[in-house]
Amino acid sequence: MVATDNLQMNSGQAPFNLSAYLQEQQTIVEAALDRAIPVIYPEKIYEAMRYSLLAGGKRLRPILCLATCQMAGGNTETSLPTACALEMIHTMSLIHDDLPAMDNDDYRRGKLTNHKVYGDDIAILAGDGLLAYAFEFVAANTKNVPAERVLQVIARLGKAVGAAGLVGGQVVDLESEAKTDVSIETLNFIHNHKTAALLEACVVCGGILAGTSAEDLQRLSRYAQNIGLAFQIIDDILDITATQEELGKTAGKDLQAQKVTYPSLWGIEESKNQAQQLISSAISQLEPFGDKATPLIAIAHYITSRTH
Amino acid sequence: MVATDNLQMNSGQAPFNLSAYLQEQQTIVEAALDRAIPVIYPEKIYEAMRYSLLAGGKRLRPILCLATCQMAGGNTETSLPTACALEMIHTMSLIHDDLPAMDNDDYRRGKLTNHKVYGDDIAILAGDGLLAYAFEFVAANTKNVPAERVLQVIARLGKAVGAAGLVGGQVVDLESEAKTDVSIETLNFIHNHKTAALLEACVVCGGILAGTSAEDLQRLSRYAQNIGLAFQIIDDILDITATQEELGKTAGKDLQAQKVTYPSLWGIEESKNQAQQLISSAISQLEPFGDKATPLIAIAHYITSRTH
Repeated sequence: MVATDNLQMNSGQAPFNLSAYLQEQQTIVEAALDRAIPVIYPEKIYEAMRYSLLAGGKRLRPILCLATCQMAGGNTETSLPTACALEMIHTMSLIHDDLPAMDNDDYRRGKLTNHKVYGDDIAILAGDGLLAYAFEFVAANTKNVPAERVLQVIARLGKAVGAAGLVGGQVVDLESEAKTDVSIETLNFIHNHKTAALLEACVVCGGILAGTSAEDLQRLSRYAQNIGLAFQIIDDILDITATQEELGKTAGKDLQAQKVTYPSLWGIEESKNQAQQLISSAISQLEPFGDKATPLIAIAHYITSRTH
Repeated sequence: MVATDNLQMNSGQAPFNLSAYLQEQQTIVEAALDRAIPVIYPEKIYEAMRYSLLAGGKRLRPILCLATCQMAGGNTETSLPTACALEMIHTMSLIHDDLPAMDNDDYRRGKLTNHKVYGDDIAILAGDGLLAYAFEFVAANTKNVPAERVLQVIARLGKAVGAAGLVGGQVVDLESEAKTDVSIETLNFIHNHKTAALLEACVVCGGILAGTSAEDLQRLSRYAQNIGLAFQIIDDILDITATQEELGKTAGKDLQAQKVTYPSLWGIEESKNQAQQLISSAISQLEPFGDKATPLIAIAHYITSRTH
């Protein structure tokens, strides 16, 4: 009886199986992304867009959007176009970041990067195409939601990827490269913008589509910022401790580039502590949602326990 | 008296002064663009975005949007955010097209191109930032219009710039480079997508914001496609006949690159005839709008008569 009680976390319901949940949501997202971009003339650009969009990955961003919408009383149909758009935006940022003019990466998720397969010109255009299509996709395909909410989602997406988000974070990251005196404030700025801003958009847009109150959107926003920063701290730790095979990309790149990271500032143990505290703080924000928050709580825990 | 009659085109109203009209609208657009992007931290990216966005130019795209909205019963306040977004999108496409990985241009509008001033990395990000901001700007700033219409505008903008528009046209253009056997169909595809698609979005979005009927949107769409193609034919002619000083960019580039153009297929005289026919056909689409179409008619004529 004691053993059974331990497994039953949700007031007598079946225990939550995160791995099965993630697998199920990932399948929904993969299928929707595959349907979203058919290959027509000129084939090369659609193939290039699909090459990176369908290259696997955990689909954490779209799943966060779907999970939040569901938690807040919405459904998958409502949030799926936005979930797909978030993955298109994320993929665009990876394609452009990998370019020789930027981070100059040859591998991503264990596959050649977009420009190594299609050339720099097509890779730039594939990123542009994915970014533009993300907004079109949300505007044209979101059903059964008041149009005002969809506009709010689009404004959030734009902000998360533009100079006030991802792009701004990448600029400061490029400026900080090879500098060994990067402050913790600058490092936080980089990751709050390069990583957390888009994760925040995932969660907050899921909430907006479900009609969440302004107060609860604030809570969702804090949840996302905290897991975003924790996610980045764990990424920095994995860059040191994981193997290339586990990561699917070049390992030890930060050390080699003498890049300032959380472990280089705090050490590995303290970095793990900080990540753990951020996760606890993130989970506390979900209190008003009760049992419905189970998937988002499990995802938060998963972020600190992942090994790749 | 006869001389005065000749000047009075609009049933007894004062004659239409296109040059003054364009100047007035341009001033409105320049001021709105300037206000749209303040410089904050990290300054470099906002400066790079502003460098190209505020580098002058005729502002033909935003003016087409404003003029169409006004013609269809809307007003400047309604269409100004979309007009600005169209110029942001156009500017993004210029910044990315000029990159070494693409057309490798050092000058644009008589000034150094974005990457020559800020570097390839920042130029890529400035384009991304402008593209994302365009959608955010429309979603967040369009007032006094039903949200459904704003979503239609966003979907049109996305389509016009993505793989089904600008990006697709640029891909076929890159594939056709250095080929001397490019067909007229391929050349039309390139320009219908690289140039006409965005001009069509300018005009159609102006109409959507004003609440134009589906039938009239079709007419606006044909007007724009025709002036778009005429615009490109004239561009090709000017590349041969105008001086570098007049163009503000490298002249004779197409010839040097042995690029297939309308004049290279048809000769200069026949190209001029074709452009003229497209303009006449464009103007005939505006019949239902009566006198209110005067600015759009004048703009169509202006396209064939411009010298730079």
